[in-house]
Amino acid sequence: MKDRTLLMIPGPIEFEPEVLQALGAPTSSHVAPEFIEVFGQALERMRKVWLCPSGQPFVVAGSGMLALEMAVVNLIEPGDKALVLSTGVFGDRYADLLRRYRAEVKLLRAPLGETIPLQQVEEALAKHQYKLMTITHVDTSTGVRTDAKSLGAIASKYDTLTVLDGVCSVAGEELRQEEWGIDVALTASQKAIGVPPGLALLVASPRAIEAWRRRKTPVGNYYADWKNWLPIMSAYEARKASYFATPPVNLICALNVSLERILGEGMEARFARHQRFKRAFQEALRVLGLKQVPTDSRHAAATLTAPYYPSGITGSEFLPKVKAAGVTLAGGLHPDIKDRYFRIGHMGAETAGNLLATIGAIEAGLEKCGYQFELGAGVSAAQRILRS
Amino acid sequence: MKDRTLLMIPGPIEFEPEVLQALGAPTSSHVAPEFIEVFGQALERMRKVWLCPSGQPFVVAGSGMLALEMAVVNLIEPGDKALVLSTGVFGDRYADLLRRYRAEVKLLRAPLGETIPLQQVEEALAKHQYKLMTITHVDTSTGVRTDAKSLGAIASKYDTLTVLDGVCSVAGEELRQEEWGIDVALTASQKAIGVPPGLALLVASPRAIEAWRRRKTPVGNYYADWKNWLPIMSAYEARKASYFATPPVNLICALNVSLERILGEGMEARFARHQRFKRAFQEALRVLGLKQVPTDSRHAAATLTAPYYPSGITGSEFLPKVKAAGVTLAGGLHPDIKDRYFRIGHMGAETAGNLLATIGAIEAGLEKCGYQFELGAGVSAAQRILRS
Repeated sequence: MKDRTLLMIPGPIEFEPEVLQALGAPTSSHVAPEFIEVFGQALERMRKVWLCPSGQPFVVAGSGMLALEMAVVNLIEPGDKALVLSTGVFGDRYADLLRRYRAEVKLLRAPLGETIPLQQVEEALAKHQYKLMTITHVDTSTGVRTDAKSLGAIASKYDTLTVLDGVCSVAGEELRQEEWGIDVALTASQKAIGVPPGLALLVASPRAIEAWRRRKTPVGNYYADWKNWLPIMSAYEARKASYFATPPVNLICALNVSLERILGEGMEARFARHQRFKRAFQEALRVLGLKQVPTDSRHAAATLTAPYYPSGITGSEFLPKVKAAGVTLAGGLHPDIKDRYFRIGHMGAETAGNLLATIGAIEAGLEKCGYQFELGAGVSAAQRILRS
Repeated sequence: MKDRTLLMIPGPIEFEPEVLQALGAPTSSHVAPEFIEVFGQALERMRKVWLCPSGQPFVVAGSGMLALEMAVVNLIEPGDKALVLSTGVFGDRYADLLRRYRAEVKLLRAPLGETIPLQQVEEALAKHQYKLMTITHVDTSTGVRTDAKSLGAIASKYDTLTVLDGVCSVAGEELRQEEWGIDVALTASQKAIGVPPGLALLVASPRAIEAWRRRKTPVGNYYADWKNWLPIMSAYEARKASYFATPPVNLICALNVSLERILGEGMEARFARHQRFKRAFQEALRVLGLKQVPTDSRHAAATLTAPYYPSGITGSEFLPKVKAAGVTLAGGLHPDIKDRYFRIGHMGAETAGNLLATIGAIEAGLEKCGYQFELGAGVSAAQRILRS
């Protein structure tokens, strides 16, 4: 099925052979002792990857969108105030989603490629008491990374619950959920977690669980209700079977393999590696003369890079040439600039070799499009950072 | 991971090697031409498996519970009347789910092991105008199969939309969605569809789509809203990429392989084979002297069998002995009789050989528990039906 190009989009990513092998292995019963052990281990490992030792992990069949929904629907009651910080398409979508559950939403939008000044967030929180605030850690549509640590600290001051959309960050960007006071941090399997798509993953703080327990109205969604899932997660973690819906057995086996690999690398080494990969891309694009959507490299993501095409070059011209050179990249997603930029995913288990191959293919594409630059300058700049 | 016993539970089932191979193959981009073709084919094939040429298929990452939710949440508005026909745990759950979305629910419950008389359903429909009626085609907790054809016909008379929970039926039990006037028929991948768990699958009639379009209030759930998914399904079927949430690429590749196999067998042959397998189980259990939860074999499922343990034998004694003899079966699920019966799944691609192996292991378990019967009588009775 898959062609032989490297898949360097912001998810699905290139998955490790061991992960794919676990996925394609014969399926056991969801109540078989072997599977109970695997599911229990995966839940324990999630706490370590999220750096949230007191957190409650949830693993549910669904896409990242379901994780976004599950994170807020358990906390919001009709009429509750929610502050949404938007740095792209996914922040805006969070506002839509919250309104669906009759939250009163205040949307703060950053200008394209920028973040929202912390002071502006603090002013908003000081002005009204918000039940929760959503943060997009990395918005896939812009490549902008927000300062989740500082935002968590500010929200704590105002007793506001924080929900972090970590779809493009968890297990790639630095995230210390418990230390930073993030109440729910969520992601999808096909991103830096390194498992084919189909799992919604989230970890909730004790404060989030407590807020859910104290709610006065039923959760406005059945499938995403923690009431259905909490007993299941607790049972599997205690190495007992329990049933609400059939768990996605194969995906959970693959998840457990990938989490073990992630912890084998170590979270600190993993964060550092993603920072190094980011610097390699930033430097390569700088010497190639490509501008990026994030207006400052300090708030550019470590998991993906979003460069503009050079003037006069279009995506429909450029991307097939990069693919012909061996690498699949993603087009734009943000409606304001959809056709003016592209996206490179470099999260998860990618090797330095894959990064060089990617920059090499970008150079090849640029050359074929007639762009003037010194061939090899990008890979050389990246190499100096990757091997330092 | 999986032990070497045959997995004969009501899902996950034993999956075909080709299906597992497709699942574990390297993941392509969700917008790669190869994947767009696969997804498009899978949608087209669903119409043929559901026998619903005018239907709109939906494939979404999630469990069967999500399919149940998606089927009704798009049709129900707060205050709408819904009639729920319950023949076990899953019918009761549908009533809970519908109440969550503020439907006014009338629950008709069959006595354990029985169906609801058609006349009683017709009386209920004649008395009040219901927006929709839910039918559990086969309730996994009881093994009772309802007469979906007649129920569809009655509902049509009263202009009531029908939602069929086909989790334990689609691609096993006879189902002719369009001919029978069923508006939404749903299932999960790990049942007779033959794909590891993680996909919610449903087909909606033009009448259901029209009812959704005419609704006055927004759908009370974001992830399950057809508004988000209909453009995606239409795009992939037209062999174009589109994005709302990342589709579960590997599971969809596996689904397409399995649907091709199902259509290769042919729906009529498949229905007939499941009927033959049912008769083999019915006859084997009769000669072994085991009673069943369904009170009449005419309304027993063709996809699973739910026998009571002989008196004096418990599940904790019996099931491990069956497993030691090579076959994993499922315990009870219905709270009223949980410890008094067990469940055998025989849906999907199971061969006659697997059926004999299963009955042989049941005989071995009975013998080890000290049950008095003629060893070999069960397999012999089944064999006469399977080879006739």
